[in-house]
Amino acid sequence: MVFCSDSLTNAGIDQVSTYSKMFHFGIEGERQFVILTAGNLATSQATIARVKIDIKQNAEVNLLNIGSIEEAADYLGDLSRVQQEKRTIEGKKFEASFIIGGQIGSAKHEIILVYPEGNHITTSMDTPYLQIGESKYGKPILDRILTPALDLDTCALCALVSMDSTLRSNLSVGPPIETLVYKTGSLTVTNYHRFDGDSEFLRDLKKSWDQLLKNAFVQLPPLKWATNWDKSGRERSGAS
Amino acid sequence: MVFCSDSLTNAGIDQVSTYSKMFHFGIEGERQFVILTAGNLATSQATIARVKIDIKQNAEVNLLNIGSIEEAADYLGDLSRVQQEKRTIEGKKFEASFIIGGQIGSAKHEIILVYPEGNHITTSMDTPYLQIGESKYGKPILDRILTPALDLDTCALCALVSMDSTLRSNLSVGPPIETLVYKTGSLTVTNYHRFDGDSEFLRDLKKSWDQLLKNAFVQLPPLKWATNWDKSGRERSGAS
Repeated sequence: MVFCSDSLTNAGIDQVSTYSKMFHFGIEGERQFVILTAGNLATSQATIARVKIDIKQNAEVNLLNIGSIEEAADYLGDLSRVQQEKRTIEGKKFEASFIIGGQIGSAKHEIILVYPEGNHITTSMDTPYLQIGESKYGKPILDRILTPALDLDTCALCALVSMDSTLRSNLSVGPPIETLVYKTGSLTVTNYHRFDGDSEFLRDLKKSWDQLLKNAFVQLPPLKWATNWDKSGRERSGAS
Repeated sequence: MVFCSDSLTNAGIDQVSTYSKMFHFGIEGERQFVILTAGNLATSQATIARVKIDIKQNAEVNLLNIGSIEEAADYLGDLSRVQQEKRTIEGKKFEASFIIGGQIGSAKHEIILVYPEGNHITTSMDTPYLQIGESKYGKPILDRILTPALDLDTCALCALVSMDSTLRSNLSVGPPIETLVYKTGSLTVTNYHRFDGDSEFLRDLKKSWDQLLKNAFVQLPPLKWATNWDKSGRERSGAS
């Protein structure tokens, strides 16, 4: 599993701050969880804070004793809803979404998107990825490249290219970009990287992808103008 | 100038219809206008109908006697607002957006985006394109490829690739895809093409671009996992 997140949050374009949106919880060799957040920062911070407190206080239900990733998604959704409902004033909502992925013991690894309402969805063979937050700009490249057969490093590269497309098109998305790879069955995290704004690799990747796209573009079949204007039966208003 | 539009409109996913969103008005050798529409179909149809009636009735202000593209954008915005205000019930809005481009006589060609509120913006050297409707999926490729120096056919190809990315990611966007190229100074339209859903060219373009992207992708610099996990000072909750 590959996780990737940016770190910008904003309350208006003149109030932009940097906060990690990637959180890791786990016990080496026993269970591993990664949580990504999007949406209202107060809600997501309060939710993650609660997750930590529950672990610290060894609450009856917490990520270190929960039975499955799905139950963990339910738990996360419940925490998030409590925070949202506490703050809702005159219908003004402070929504947050989450992606939680991980593995417990020998059970199957899983990745789940938790909506602000607390309900959730998972992936499929045809849609092997999930997105939260500003998802549209970066979706086409994921749709084109990602298949379950790809190796993890290529998937991580694809996540970074998708993030680069989003960075380019939306000011409210920005570095540091965090990427984490979880190798199924390992029950530990070995590959994590935090790319700062001045990351040489990210700059190279951006430049390479830009150039490769331009090269690809000139190899496209040329447009054949059949000029079926007249044949099309389209109305041409005016004096024509 | 290159114009490109899809033809799907929907009122819910079980009520999908095909309507052209590209309209052409003009007098050969004197003036040419192309209008693209997005948003509420009733509003855009009523607005375009009004444009046609005004031409037919030779109204004091109509596209065939208006003095500039900017005035035409003002006129279009006014028509659209009248339609929207007529239909607004209990705050429910029926918004539409327009792109109008063209040239009058020897004046400079221009392309303008008209917002539902009737105000409008044009392009710049840095942002040589405008989008209305479902714009996010197809924006990154425009950002990467389009420059004012490109020839018109390449721009048209780029518009089609951008549209293909949107088609792939959003069910509510679909063929026929209309593309029209206006050559500055010509005061006539020669290159128009309507690509149907079974268009061989569109299928080839889609397939080529998919393959070219995949080829480009494997040429990217490989990820170097510096594993700065420990160095990053990130909190690792749980038992670690």
